[in-house]
Amino acid sequence: MLKQKSGIKKIVLAFSGGLDTSIILRWLQNEYDCEVITFTADLGQGDELEVARAKALALGVKPENIFVEDLREEFVRDYVMPAFRANAVYEGYYLMGTPIARPLVAKRQIEIARLLGADAVAHGATGKGNDQLRFELSYYALSPDIRVVAPWREWDMQSRTDLLDYADRHGIPVFKDNRGEPPYSADANLLHISAEGKVLEDPWVTPEEDVFTRSVSPENAPDRPTITEINFERGNPVAVDGVHLSPSATLALLNKLGGDNGIGRLDIVDTRYVGMKSRGVFETPGGTIWQVAHRALESITLDRGESHLKDELMPRYAELIYNGYWFAPEREMLQALIDKSQERVTGTVRLKLYKGNVIVEGRKSPYSLYSQRHVTFEKDQVYDQSDATGFIKLNALRLRLLAQARSVQQAG
Amino acid sequence: MLKQKSGIKKIVLAFSGGLDTSIILRWLQNEYDCEVITFTADLGQGDELEVARAKALALGVKPENIFVEDLREEFVRDYVMPAFRANAVYEGYYLMGTPIARPLVAKRQIEIARLLGADAVAHGATGKGNDQLRFELSYYALSPDIRVVAPWREWDMQSRTDLLDYADRHGIPVFKDNRGEPPYSADANLLHISAEGKVLEDPWVTPEEDVFTRSVSPENAPDRPTITEINFERGNPVAVDGVHLSPSATLALLNKLGGDNGIGRLDIVDTRYVGMKSRGVFETPGGTIWQVAHRALESITLDRGESHLKDELMPRYAELIYNGYWFAPEREMLQALIDKSQERVTGTVRLKLYKGNVIVEGRKSPYSLYSQRHVTFEKDQVYDQSDATGFIKLNALRLRLLAQARSVQQAG
Amino acid sequence: MLKQKSGIKKIVLAFSGGLDTSIILRWLQNEYDCEVITFTADLGQGDELEVARAKALALGVKPENIFVEDLREEFVRDYVMPAFRANAVYEGYYLMGTPIARPLVAKRQIEIARLLGADAVAHGATGKGNDQLRFELSYYALSPDIRVVAPWREWDMQSRTDLLDYADRHGIPVFKDNRGEPPYSADANLLHISAEGKVLEDPWVTPEEDVFTRSVSPENAPDRPTITEINFERGNPVAVDGVHLSPSATLALLNKLGGDNGIGRLDIVDTRYVGMKSRGVFETPGGTIWQVAHRALESITLDRGESHLKDELMPRYAELIYNGYWFAPEREMLQALIDKSQERVTGTVRLKLYKGNVIVEGRKSPYSLYSQRHVTFEKDQVYDQSDATGFIKLNALRLRLLAQARSVQQAG
Amino acid sequence: MLKQKSGIKKIVLAFSGGLDTSIILRWLQNEYDCEVITFTADLGQGDELEVARAKALALGVKPENIFVEDLREEFVRDYVMPAFRANAVYEGYYLMGTPIARPLVAKRQIEIARLLGADAVAHGATGKGNDQLRFELSYYALSPDIRVVAPWREWDMQSRTDLLDYADRHGIPVFKDNRGEPPYSADANLLHISAEGKVLEDPWVTPEEDVFTRSVSPENAPDRPTITEINFERGNPVAVDGVHLSPSATLALLNKLGGDNGIGRLDIVDTRYVGMKSRGVFETPGGTIWQVAHRALESITLDRGESHLKDELMPRYAELIYNGYWFAPEREMLQALIDKSQERVTGTVRLKLYKGNVIVEGRKSPYSLYSQRHVTFEKDQVYDQSDATGFIKLNALRLRLLAQARSVQQAG
Repeated sequence: MLKQKSGIKKIVLAFSGGLDTSIILRWLQNEYDCEVITFTADLGQGDELEVARAKALALGVKPENIFVEDLREEFVRDYVMPAFRANAVYEGYYLMGTPIARPLVAKRQIEIARLLGADAVAHGATGKGNDQLRFELSYYALSPDIRVVAPWREWDMQSRTDLLDYADRHGIPVFKDNRGEPPYSADANLLHISAEGKVLEDPWVTPEEDVFTRSVSPENAPDRPTITEINFERGNPVAVDGVHLSPSATLALLNKLGGDNGIGRLDIVDTRYVGMKSRGVFETPGGTIWQVAHRALESITLDRGESHLKDELMPRYAELIYNGYWFAPEREMLQALIDKSQERVTGTVRLKLYKGNVIVEGRKSPYSLYSQRHVTFEKDQVYDQSDATGFIKLNALRLRLLAQARSVQQAG
Repeated sequence: MLKQKSGIKKIVLAFSGGLDTSIILRWLQNEYDCEVITFTADLGQGDELEVARAKALALGVKPENIFVEDLREEFVRDYVMPAFRANAVYEGYYLMGTPIARPLVAKRQIEIARLLGADAVAHGATGKGNDQLRFELSYYALSPDIRVVAPWREWDMQSRTDLLDYADRHGIPVFKDNRGEPPYSADANLLHISAEGKVLEDPWVTPEEDVFTRSVSPENAPDRPTITEINFERGNPVAVDGVHLSPSATLALLNKLGGDNGIGRLDIVDTRYVGMKSRGVFETPGGTIWQVAHRALESITLDRGESHLKDELMPRYAELIYNGYWFAPEREMLQALIDKSQERVTGTVRLKLYKGNVIVEGRKSPYSLYSQRHVTFEKDQVYDQSDATGFIKLNALRLRLLAQARSVQQAG
Repeated sequence: MLKQKSGIKKIVLAFSGGLDTSIILRWLQNEYDCEVITFTADLGQGDELEVARAKALALGVKPENIFVEDLREEFVRDYVMPAFRANAVYEGYYLMGTPIARPLVAKRQIEIARLLGADAVAHGATGKGNDQLRFELSYYALSPDIRVVAPWREWDMQSRTDLLDYADRHGIPVFKDNRGEPPYSADANLLHISAEGKVLEDPWVTPEEDVFTRSVSPENAPDRPTITEINFERGNPVAVDGVHLSPSATLALLNKLGGDNGIGRLDIVDTRYVGMKSRGVFETPGGTIWQVAHRALESITLDRGESHLKDELMPRYAELIYNGYWFAPEREMLQALIDKSQERVTGTVRLKLYKGNVIVEGRKSPYSLYSQRHVTFEKDQVYDQSDATGFIKLNALRLRLLAQARSVQQAG
Repeated sequence: MLKQKSGIKKIVLAFSGGLDTSIILRWLQNEYDCEVITFTADLGQGDELEVARAKALALGVKPENIFVEDLREEFVRDYVMPAFRANAVYEGYYLMGTPIARPLVAKRQIEIARLLGADAVAHGATGKGNDQLRFELSYYALSPDIRVVAPWREWDMQSRTDLLDYADRHGIPVFKDNRGEPPYSADANLLHISAEGKVLEDPWVTPEEDVFTRSVSPENAPDRPTITEINFERGNPVAVDGVHLSPSATLALLNKLGGDNGIGRLDIVDTRYVGMKSRGVFETPGGTIWQVAHRALESITLDRGESHLKDELMPRYAELIYNGYWFAPEREMLQALIDKSQERVTGTVRLKLYKGNVIVEGRKSPYSLYSQRHVTFEKDQVYDQSDATGFIKLNALRLRLLAQARSVQQAG
């Protein structure tokens, strides 16, 4: 028993109600001999949360130690929106549905631990992936002296078979829905659903259609396009087709529009923070539409100085979130910079959704920097073409001096 | 007559054979009273180049002063390929078909000027756009004392009507194909075709279908996908579906594949270096496929340190090219950094092309960094999960020290 | 007379009272036939401001059109402090005393123009330097339709002799102190004094001692060091040797301490925004001490994530200020990022000042991240050395995978 | 005995001959029961290397297994010079004498391991510092399957007392010079000497004078300045006061000049890669002169595009080296970028060295970009001041459009 050496008395477990975290729950009770508090969050993953409550009860958790919370609004408002204001993508494409969600779960675990005087937290992420980092770096950033238990790095079990054996040996009821072996590992929330591992492990092999659950394929999407308008205020979407919606309802509606039109599928190889490459398949239908629309609105409302600085810093910002540094001070510094730029990102984007394509059809804003007067090809008063001569000549001056020095060099 | 004050005797004009540069040719002859040398490049724009030769002759240019050259191979090999090794996009989307091509034309103008002892160069770009910068910054970087004539910034004409009036007044033959007013301004080469101005000037209005000439719409693309494989060596595509091709033939074939499948259309508002925003519509069918394939291959052959550094520097690199700094030393420094990373970007990517979508189906490489041994979910020897504990704890240490300092701060 | 074409009725001139701006004042009256409002700011340059008032009166400016203001506090609080929170230096060394000050003068000119209904502003900077950009980019950013008059770019005068001729021709009283030709061009304020041009133009030649007016040379500084302590709060100095002082009084005292000890001299060649290189000699005694102290305090109060991000972005931030973009949105974005990091930069630094050296002797803070418990070489509980094994092994994993791929490449 | 589980047969130890590595040598023999090969490098630390050979022999190492090599020339040429071409400093000040040297030692260990068929390497760095990373990341990058033994992380000994006990218990001869307890931990090579730990652990306390061994204090330096000239070719110093010298002889001479004049002392708190802050005292007399001279020469030979890009990337480059990533591909990419910029960094710098100050007195180059013609205040032909009007107006255009949008925003 690890209890003696650890001294842990109460532990808050991120509990999904699935096989893994059910085993972990019992294992913590057995090995650490401690009181387990379960925390189950509704982030829009689509599970029935009361099932998690029932499973926790069945595994002997006291009713007052079972926390089941709907965090969808907070998730979209405080985690998805900041990241999408930054146009964050990891390694060119990945919209980071999982990395954006983990810090919120970790934060609530810490808050519950404080509330109940728990001295430890636990999660069900493995020792090879990124999620352990997203959980634990968040734990430590918010509560530097918290104890962390990561069962997958402690126990000897390494496969699903090991888990089922453990369940059988310890008389843990294995719920019917957990018995069948899934062909890949998955994570879901309102922003995305992911799949990795097993049948996806050869990056030369195309994923089967049954990997996808949140979107039809482009081939199976309707033959007629859908036209939609999205309104933004200060960088965040606030209405779709004229209907004002809460943050999570906005994302849910965009998911529906995207999923119906074959939008948001992604199949990539990305590099985990722990150093290995991993192949993942993702569906982010609403997020994909959102980002295209946001960038389109930025294209008329952000000055070049603003948008180029954002673009240059975005990969760093995304890397921080991907690696688990949501609560690191440098992420907050970058967020301050990004948010400063969003004050005028207000307006409307019209999109055509068609078989996997998100096509910008129009964008407008009361604060548009696009000036028809300036671009018109006809005679105008607002722009004096002769100014360009001076502009070019002074921008060229350093290049001319350099060319002269280089000719000295070549002659030398 | 400007001749007296300018003293220009021979000038090399970038001559397309269109209305604008025909007027410029005559205007230079009239106003500068100088010998005009025409330079017409085949960059894959699809024009019949001998027509340009005939027009130059008709406008009185001496045969020995007419230069017509096929630069398609040099264009793709020395300009498109370096930029695509960098995955260069401007402001998130634009593949920069025009900015990548102008420096090559400028360079040849300077070389011809040296060859013939010309003391000046001229181009037909207006005073409001980016192209004047791409031409002139290249001229000055390559030949610091060259004289530059930019007629659009010198003369009083500001519209097509003015040009036709000038043609009529000066007895310039206006060729039939130049008489009709096009509904927008266009530029074309093997990499892309662009349209801007006129009917496109309201960014809220969707472009008409007839703006597009190099691709079918996604709606009109075939209902069956096309599967294709592209081979890369050291970051450059060298074969399509097993057939080795020259750089320009590769791009031409990718254009065909993309155009047939509704791929590579783009409608954006971008920010010109001269400070105004501009709406442009672009078709880059082959380039769009190329970049997706290149990034897919990089995802298995580049280390995280390489790819993240590239991603962070790419916006700067793209901005330099967009603004006309192809021949600036900082572009060359960035190119050295990028090219250093491409030594192992060799392998094959399999793609599905379908109604506007470029879907990566598989990627493989003899130098792949993807290690199935490391990612497998089963027991393995090569990765010790307990290492992750130390990795996390030391990465968390600074966050924990910070959290302690912050708690002092809040208490204080 | 330019009045007809310009239509300018009232103009606010940045007026120092020196020869140049006196000539400009009269020239504006003559050529533009407009009402001139003079604005003279006390930025700590050390001039007697009432002299400027008298000169303006003597040149016929109406008393109600003469503005003389002490801006020292605002200068240090709102311009120097933000830049020093960023540790801003241009091209490695230059603390930017002039670029930081110009935007404040420009801002007050615009405010006065609004107050009095003036339609134009003017300054005395030449057409070759950076100051014209700092003035005019600020003017335009704050008042996009303001008219700007830059006499040095309009008139034919190009030298001091020309100016004196003009004064004589137009009966302008040339004040005795303006008659002698200074051996270089200078600018001064509370942050620095600069010298450039004339005798300094050969960068191989050492400046004469008489260029320096605000500091003794290291050789002539006292043989005994001065020890001083500076207190910072949220990134700004608030007390010296225990005495709380206003921002400008703090800088004035640091100037005294630095100047007495031969600190803050700088002789550099920097690259102007207009493209040419320029040799400048600067004295920034107080600023030099300030920056060393600030960095020392940051070294114990900023997390690595904070300080490294600041360091990477600082050159960009400095370049923006140097080039005149104080009021550009990207400068404000960077400032938001920087200021976010300064919340805990509170504490004390002890320095030894000795013959040009600023030596950090100690630093302490209630929010120090320096943990003696963690660094001690003896046995401890807070740091488990075995964690380092995992930390290293996972950081090395990507390098090992890469080495394997490279060996395939070499074998291939 | 660890031998059984490790299976290590031959190990290459980085052996200084000091107490720590002597204990390690014996401990490896005892615990791993393996053949130990010692590698001792002369990096200019000033030790007598043959002493190390004698100690290894005395500890039972076979003569053919003792490697003692003078690497000073390679160290300066291939490690110091590349880093100094980049002007690399960590966290604002640290010239990284130790981080630059470790990779070379690691590389030679790996080469010797290959030569002798050894299967492991070992070093004497502790588990709390950065050096373990610099050794081990280099080992793994160069030989991905090498076994690494880090005794300080394996054994129970944690203090000097423990070491001496071990020596006594195992009959290891403790050499007289190793018996006395030094007041701090030190590392030395031709570039620098460092001290940390023990008496230096309180960052508020000033180090005693006896910490410094390679330089006099500014107070004790001569009252008369030393004037010196350094010649550079392609970014590297090649001659001092007209005498051409090898890389290591150049650095040795600069050390002498600097040390005699009180130059190059540094007292900082820096942030280790493992997350804790550490206070270090460094002497880098020659390196300090070198960097000032190099930057001075760059100020006239590098174009703004080159120098600003270098400055922005330098902190990243320095961080990589500090953290141990010398052999990481991103360091090599940055090096390619940096080296590209150094082709014309050729010329001469004249310096005044005086009591801690390195004062640039002059700089010249055949490829100087400084153009006296362009900066002169008098009439000139090469620069047309009116060009500045266009330059400013077009740079201001985006700011004006933004100001207009902002006024809409405020009105709205």
